[in-house]
Amino acid sequence: MKGKHPHGLRLKRLGIDTQQEAVVYMREDCHICRAEGFAAHARIRVAHGANAIVATLHHIKGDLLSVGDASLSEVAWRSLGAREGDEVVLSHMEPLESLSDVRTKIYGHRLASPAMARIIDDVAAGRYSDIHIAAFVTACSGGRLDGGEITALTRAMVDAGERLTWPTSPVVDKHCVGGLPGNRTTPIVVAIVTACGLTMPKTSSRAITSPAGTADTMETLAPVDLSLQAMRRVVEREGGCIVWGGAVHLSPADDALIRIERAIDLDGEGQLVASVLSKKVAAGSTHLVLDLPVGPTAKLRSAEEAERIGHHLLHTADELGIRTRLVVSDGTQPVGRGIGPALEARDVLAVLEGRPNAPEDLRRRGVVLAGALLELAGAAPDGGGEAVADEVLRDGRAKNKFERICEAQGGRREPPTAQHHAPIAATTTGRVRAIDNRRLARIAKLAGAPDAKAAGLALHVHVGDTVERSQPLFTVQAETPGELSYALDYARSHDTIITLEEA
Amino acid sequence: MKGKHPHGLRLKRLGIDTQQEAVVYMREDCHICRAEGFAAHARIRVAHGANAIVATLHHIKGDLLSVGDASLSEVAWRSLGAREGDEVVLSHMEPLESLSDVRTKIYGHRLASPAMARIIDDVAAGRYSDIHIAAFVTACSGGRLDGGEITALTRAMVDAGERLTWPTSPVVDKHCVGGLPGNRTTPIVVAIVTACGLTMPKTSSRAITSPAGTADTMETLAPVDLSLQAMRRVVEREGGCIVWGGAVHLSPADDALIRIERAIDLDGEGQLVASVLSKKVAAGSTHLVLDLPVGPTAKLRSAEEAERIGHHLLHTADELGIRTRLVVSDGTQPVGRGIGPALEARDVLAVLEGRPNAPEDLRRRGVVLAGALLELAGAAPDGGGEAVADEVLRDGRAKNKFERICEAQGGRREPPTAQHHAPIAATTTGRVRAIDNRRLARIAKLAGAPDAKAAGLALHVHVGDTVERSQPLFTVQAETPGELSYALDYARSHDTIITLEEA
Repeated sequence: MKGKHPHGLRLKRLGIDTQQEAVVYMREDCHICRAEGFAAHARIRVAHGANAIVATLHHIKGDLLSVGDASLSEVAWRSLGAREGDEVVLSHMEPLESLSDVRTKIYGHRLASPAMARIIDDVAAGRYSDIHIAAFVTACSGGRLDGGEITALTRAMVDAGERLTWPTSPVVDKHCVGGLPGNRTTPIVVAIVTACGLTMPKTSSRAITSPAGTADTMETLAPVDLSLQAMRRVVEREGGCIVWGGAVHLSPADDALIRIERAIDLDGEGQLVASVLSKKVAAGSTHLVLDLPVGPTAKLRSAEEAERIGHHLLHTADELGIRTRLVVSDGTQPVGRGIGPALEARDVLAVLEGRPNAPEDLRRRGVVLAGALLELAGAAPDGGGEAVADEVLRDGRAKNKFERICEAQGGRREPPTAQHHAPIAATTTGRVRAIDNRRLARIAKLAGAPDAKAAGLALHVHVGDTVERSQPLFTVQAETPGELSYALDYARSHDTIITLEEA
Repeated sequence: MKGKHPHGLRLKRLGIDTQQEAVVYMREDCHICRAEGFAAHARIRVAHGANAIVATLHHIKGDLLSVGDASLSEVAWRSLGAREGDEVVLSHMEPLESLSDVRTKIYGHRLASPAMARIIDDVAAGRYSDIHIAAFVTACSGGRLDGGEITALTRAMVDAGERLTWPTSPVVDKHCVGGLPGNRTTPIVVAIVTACGLTMPKTSSRAITSPAGTADTMETLAPVDLSLQAMRRVVEREGGCIVWGGAVHLSPADDALIRIERAIDLDGEGQLVASVLSKKVAAGSTHLVLDLPVGPTAKLRSAEEAERIGHHLLHTADELGIRTRLVVSDGTQPVGRGIGPALEARDVLAVLEGRPNAPEDLRRRGVVLAGALLELAGAAPDGGGEAVADEVLRDGRAKNKFERICEAQGGRREPPTAQHHAPIAATTTGRVRAIDNRRLARIAKLAGAPDAKAAGLALHVHVGDTVERSQPLFTVQAETPGELSYALDYARSHDTIITLEEA
């Protein structure tokens, strides 16, 4: 039962999810493996009609696959657009010329723009294995990219993906460098600046390692999984949107690079700058405000670090023609009360609706960022942006605009509520000296966030507050008893999550 | 049907071979994945009784695995010593402290010995993913290791594995840096120097990318898959052996590093030195001769390259207490006639048996290397080693010793013969100007070598020979018609394999 092509095999689904790694499964005794000399773990070309990808070969011993069959990892099915029973043709991959550019960088030489473009094209097309990407990322880290190389990298990342254009100008955007739990200012900023007439077509990400991404939070308030066409209709009608960026193929190389950087725990400055700015250029942004939270458990741990990154961001943004302003902010503790998609959504709603219990820190940050954008884009006089933003929020125009955007995206939703709650209380009386962002994020994730939308935690204290013994510091919320107990186990076994000092 | 441990699953065999990558397969909806927050492609700890490994998680969607079951890649079954139906316990892996040492190197700082040891211990224990190893290898390449770091790396690689000791001294060894097709001097050198009373317990490798490793070739002449105990008995009886090194666990980190270096096509000098010398130190060698073939299609392409590598090898060997001599040799063309396990074995036999048709180049190289070892170890006067080696070969002592070693290893075998032959002939008359080592190796592999032991090719010409039009240049040999035609297709479509010039 061979396929028609001498090097063809028929696809069978095994249902193996390897995340982003394209894998092809072939019988070890397959005639093609023998003839081509394909060893296990080789990188080979898999063609399906006019589409082709490069995949890592895993051999199957025994009868999981019949003779004449092959299978793919889930991501490879998707990339090829293949269906069960289709034929794929297997062959050796062409040598990757751009690997010699990577070696050039490894040997300490500068990469010119064409070399950077060759590398990023191959990364974006999935032709690099994790090993190749790791070599590239490592060779570019430790300050080994100069300003010109950072700009070339950013341009190459833009060129490797789709690029949006908008009929109006300016097109504004905001971005927070290194997330901070609960810092969900985006819906507030979009509501304020679009209410003031600016265009802000915001694409956001889902959480990768955090308990909630803006897209996860927004999804509890309205649909976010819009096609590019649907997104354009929303922006045309309301001047802005808050959608998931996954449907739009902006800077596809970035996802591949970030996944590897995270595995090595490297934040190369050059790559951070290219990552942030390539997505903004590709999204068609002309004016950008960057939020840089600084704190001991934030990504940027010191003012010096923020300044250095800020310098590179401004330089490259300037080269690429994006007007940019930096807002260095307090990153010492979470923002608002909720951590987790639905919990953060309720903080956002409280701010937009002007409720008396709305978290003041979140409100304030939204006003500062929106004010900066209004000034930068000429919609408010210099020094007058915050006052305009504050008024638009106070008089309900931002809330109304937000409701209309939700309707345009498919209809407003109410964030879900978790069934299982348990407080973590202070074991002593004292003043809150420090809050560990990373550990709180971990607890929210153990409770089920972001997949369980209602899960996470509600924080009851901030730095400087005085608490009594037995007073709840935060409440863990989960959708299942198992996840609740799992998060509680972690919370109870770590006593430095919220540090108290004598009042 | 859960296992007894709350985080335990029962093992089922799927038969997936991922080469050296440890993979654990778990259902996506598995209670442990949810509770622990294990995402696809996460690195997790898999414990089986007292053994534990770190594996990459692949999720299974659908019913390839039942609820309560998990599976492993073939290498993970082996590492854990697990059987179908056994229980494994899954948990988060401990953070790898040594990754901060890798980052230190990425940021351009020197690694002290303890840092090098931490990294190599984790690599040897399989705690690094391919991404982590690639980052380390890249950070150490491009001349970024100084002499002290190379020595520290070599020591760390020795310490991470087993180390052999021998009751006698000296213990001699030889190694060829960068293989050359057909350069199968090892059995000849072992036979000569052990016939002269030296101890040479030789462990060799199987082919990884070449058409034959010394272990593959030797296996057509005698069993090579000996336990350490069996190897010791052979050495005790005969003074030497030629066995596969896989059963002996010398420098286990080396295999992991080499696999990644090959994928990036990097030959960091420091890693090459550490790779070669760590295995020699671990094997208990005291005196070492290194063959450095130089030629345009060899690993070392110029005399300068050989000199630079040679300097590092001598320096580090000196630090580690191994007396070493370099023999720079001609690497411009293959050695002997055969390429492929059985074909090379027949060349070796012809030399040992002193047959008139024995390839003179192979014989000469064996004599030079054996002579250097005899002098280095004090078994021949300076300048007199080659004469001694030549005599031992000529009078049959080397052949007799070789036969006895084969018997001690389990009995002498006759190399198999291929059923399918086809010559590749000269398309013009002329003189042989160049022979491409890499392309000839590729043809031998396409013909089935090294898995098909009889497959490969017999070379009929050497550089400088004059050939007539239609005279055979080499003969491809295969065990199946399919592999024969596959190798011929390649041979016929590349006309620069053997380059002729006007005579």
